[in-house]
Amino acid sequence: MDLGIVFLTIVLVLFLAKISAVVFEKFGIPGLVGEILIGVVIANLVIGDWSFMKVLDLEDADSINSQFFFVLAEMGVIFLLFSVGLEMRVCDLMKVGRTASLVAILGVILPFIFGFILMLAYDGNMYHALFLGAAMVATSVGITAKVIKDMKVMNTKESRIIIGAAVIDDIMGMIVLAVVVGMAQSGSLDIVSIGEIVVKAVIFVVFILFLCSKVVPRFDRWWRSRFVPRPCDINYTMLTVAVIVCFGSAYVADLIGLAPIIGAFLAGMLFADRAKEWGMYKGIESITTFLLPFFFVYVGMNVDLGAISSDVLLLFAVVLILAIIGKHVGGALGAKIGDKSLDKNSLNIIGIGMIPRGEVGIIVAAMGLKIVVDGSQAVSQEMYVVVVLMSVVTTLIAPPLLSKLFRKKYPEEQDNGCETGRCQI
Amino acid sequence: MDLGIVFLTIVLVLFLAKISAVVFEKFGIPGLVGEILIGVVIANLVIGDWSFMKVLDLEDADSINSQFFFVLAEMGVIFLLFSVGLEMRVCDLMKVGRTASLVAILGVILPFIFGFILMLAYDGNMYHALFLGAAMVATSVGITAKVIKDMKVMNTKESRIIIGAAVIDDIMGMIVLAVVVGMAQSGSLDIVSIGEIVVKAVIFVVFILFLCSKVVPRFDRWWRSRFVPRPCDINYTMLTVAVIVCFGSAYVADLIGLAPIIGAFLAGMLFADRAKEWGMYKGIESITTFLLPFFFVYVGMNVDLGAISSDVLLLFAVVLILAIIGKHVGGALGAKIGDKSLDKNSLNIIGIGMIPRGEVGIIVAAMGLKIVVDGSQAVSQEMYVVVVLMSVVTTLIAPPLLSKLFRKKYPEEQDNGCETGRCQI
Repeated sequence: MDLGIVFLTIVLVLFLAKISAVVFEKFGIPGLVGEILIGVVIANLVIGDWSFMKVLDLEDADSINSQFFFVLAEMGVIFLLFSVGLEMRVCDLMKVGRTASLVAILGVILPFIFGFILMLAYDGNMYHALFLGAAMVATSVGITAKVIKDMKVMNTKESRIIIGAAVIDDIMGMIVLAVVVGMAQSGSLDIVSIGEIVVKAVIFVVFILFLCSKVVPRFDRWWRSRFVPRPCDINYTMLTVAVIVCFGSAYVADLIGLAPIIGAFLAGMLFADRAKEWGMYKGIESITTFLLPFFFVYVGMNVDLGAISSDVLLLFAVVLILAIIGKHVGGALGAKIGDKSLDKNSLNIIGIGMIPRGEVGIIVAAMGLKIVVDGSQAVSQEMYVVVVLMSVVTTLIAPPLLSKLFRKKYPEEQDNGCETGRCQI
Repeated sequence: MDLGIVFLTIVLVLFLAKISAVVFEKFGIPGLVGEILIGVVIANLVIGDWSFMKVLDLEDADSINSQFFFVLAEMGVIFLLFSVGLEMRVCDLMKVGRTASLVAILGVILPFIFGFILMLAYDGNMYHALFLGAAMVATSVGITAKVIKDMKVMNTKESRIIIGAAVIDDIMGMIVLAVVVGMAQSGSLDIVSIGEIVVKAVIFVVFILFLCSKVVPRFDRWWRSRFVPRPCDINYTMLTVAVIVCFGSAYVADLIGLAPIIGAFLAGMLFADRAKEWGMYKGIESITTFLLPFFFVYVGMNVDLGAISSDVLLLFAVVLILAIIGKHVGGALGAKIGDKSLDKNSLNIIGIGMIPRGEVGIIVAAMGLKIVVDGSQAVSQEMYVVVVLMSVVTTLIAPPLLSKLFRKKYPEEQDNGCETGRCQI
C-alpha cells in the first residue's frame, strides 16, 4: 500500500475543491458547484501524457486509491446526512409528513412516466424505457441538504418538506430500481422482493422512531444525571457514540437494501432533540468538513467529457428538460395539494429543491449498463452518457437557483444557535 | 467495493475500542492500552469457524478492507501528531532543544548497542544483530503523545523534552534503518544515501522553521484584518487549511524518506502559536477522536499470539528488559546531562516516556523479514515475533507508569484553555 499517493490525493483534492468553492462563493454560487466542477476537471484534464487521474492512480476504478477515494466520498455524504438529521427533529418532520409524502410521490411518478414514454418513443426498447424512468426518479438529498445547511435555513418549513420528501423519494427510488432490475433480469414483476423492501424499510423507520421516543429520553436522563450539559461545546465521548450509531444505522440500511445515507439521516434524527446539549454538533460538522469535498469531487469525476457527441446532445437536451420539469412540477404540485398555505415562492423552492439527481441517477444507469436482456444492454452506452450528464447538470443548476430563492424568501440567516455562541436549545 | 463491510468494520472497531478504553480508564489505566488490547483480541479470537478477522474480511492483509483499515489507522496517527504539534510552540521546543537532542541521541545509542550485542551473542549473525538493534531504537511518539495529551500536561517541561526527543529519535531511527537496510542489501555502508536522508531531513525542518517565522505571521496579519478572532471556536475554513497543510507536509516527509507522522507534527507546530485563535483546535480534535482508535487497534492487531512459543519467550524476556533499560537509562541520562535542574521524578518521567516502541519497531522488523542476505532472512521469523511482542509490551506498560508519574508530579490538570471555555491565549 503506497501511502504517499493517498496523502497526495487528499491534499490535491481538498486544495482544489476548497479554492474552487471559495471562487464560486465569491460570485454568489454555492461552493459545492465549484467542487463538482473541479471533479469534472480532475477526471478530464489531459495535457500530453500527463493527467490528474494518472498522477493520483485513479484511472483504473479498481485500483486501491480509487476504491479508497470512493470510500472517503461515501463517508463524506454519510456524515453530511447525519448532520442534516441532527438538525431535523422528528416532531418537525411529522408536521410536514403528509406534504412531504405527496411531494415525493408525485415527484417520483411524473419523472418516471416522462422518462418511460420518451425512451419508448425514441427507440422502442421497453427496458431502456424502464431504466431511463428509474434514473429520472432519484433525488440526491445530499446536494439540496448541503445548500440548505450552508444557508442556515434548516428550520424553515420548505426545508423540512424538501428533506422529508427527498428521503421518502430515496426509499421509493430503491423500490422502483428493484422493480426495474427484477423485471429486466426475470422478465416479470417480482412482487415478493418488492414487498420485502417495502416491509424492511417500514420496519427500519418505525424502529428508529421507537428508539427516538422511548430509548433516547431515558439515555438523556441518565446522561444529565452524570454530566452538566455544556451546550454548543464538544463532548468527545458523545461524538464517538454519534459516529458509532451513524455507521451502525448506515450499515443496517445497506444490509436491508436501502441507501446507507438514509440510515445515516435517520440516525441523526435520533439525536436531533439533544444534539447541541450533548455536544455532538460541532464535532460531526468538523469531520464532515474534512470528508464532504471528496463526495462532491467524486460526483463530478463521473463525467466523461470525451463521451459527449452531437447525437447524444439532442437526446440529452430533451431528457434534461423533462427531468427538470418532471421533478419541479411533480414536487410543487404535491406541495400545493398537501399544504394550501404555501405561496408561489415556497412551491418554487420545493420544486427546485427536488431537481438535483446527484450520484443516484448515475448509480441506476451504471446498474443497467451491466444487465443484458435479449442480447442487448438494459442501458445503452449512449443512454448512460445522457443520464450522467443529466444527473450532473441538474445537480449544478439547482443549488444557485435554490440559494437565490431562499435568500429572497428569508433575507435574514436563520441561526442554528451554535455558530454565534447564542444557544437556542 | 462492498461498503457494508467497511461500515461494519468502523462500527465494530470503534464500539469495542471505546468500551474497552472506558473500562480501562475506570481502573486508572490510560484508555489506549484497552484499545491496543482489543486489537489483540480482534486479531486472535477464533471461536470454531468464526473469527473477527473473517467477519471483517481482514484475514488477508492485501484485501481492500485491510488496506482501508491500514489507511484509517495511518490517518488517525497523522491527525494525532498534527494535534500534538498544534500544542507545541517552536519557541518552547527550542528552549528544550539541547536536552531533547541528548535524550534522543543516548536513547538511540544505548538500545542499539544492547540489541546488537545481544543478538551477536545469541546466534552470531551480523545482520540479525543489526536489525534487532535498529528495531530497538525507535520510539513511538504517538503512544506517549496520546498519554500526555489526555492528561493535559502538554505544557510541562518534561512533555516538551519527550516529544522533542521522540521526533528527533524518529528521524535518527530512519537514518539507522537506512544504514542497516543499505548494509544488508549491498554488504557495505552506503555513506551517500545516509548523507542524503540527513540533508533532506535538515532541509525539511529548516524549511518548516522558516515558514513558522516568516510566512505564518504574515498570514496571521492578513487573517486578523479580515476576521474577528473567536478563540476556541471552530473556523471551518481554517480547519480545511489545516488538513491540507497537515497531509501536504506528511506527503513531503514520506517523499523524502521520513515518517509521515514527522511531517504532520511539524505542520502542527507551524500553527501552534495561533491554533486556538484560528479555530483549528477543536475541529482537528474531533477528527482525531474519530480516526485515532483505528490506529491503536491496528497496533494490537499485529500481535499473533499463535506464534509465541517457549523458545521465543526467553529471548523475548531478555529483549524486553534490554529495550526498557536501554531507553530508560539512555533517556534519563541524556536529560540529566542536558538539564541539571531536572529532579529524579522528571528524569524518570522522561525515561519512561521514551520506552514505547509502538508500530515503529514492528515496521523495522517487517522490513528485515523481506531482505535475504547470504541465503537467510535479515530478520528471522523468531526474531520477528520477539520484536512485535517487545513493541506491544513496551507500548502497554509505559502509559500507566507515565500517567502515574505525571499525576504525582502535577496533581492538578494543566488546562489547555479550550476545554473549559477559559481561554489563555
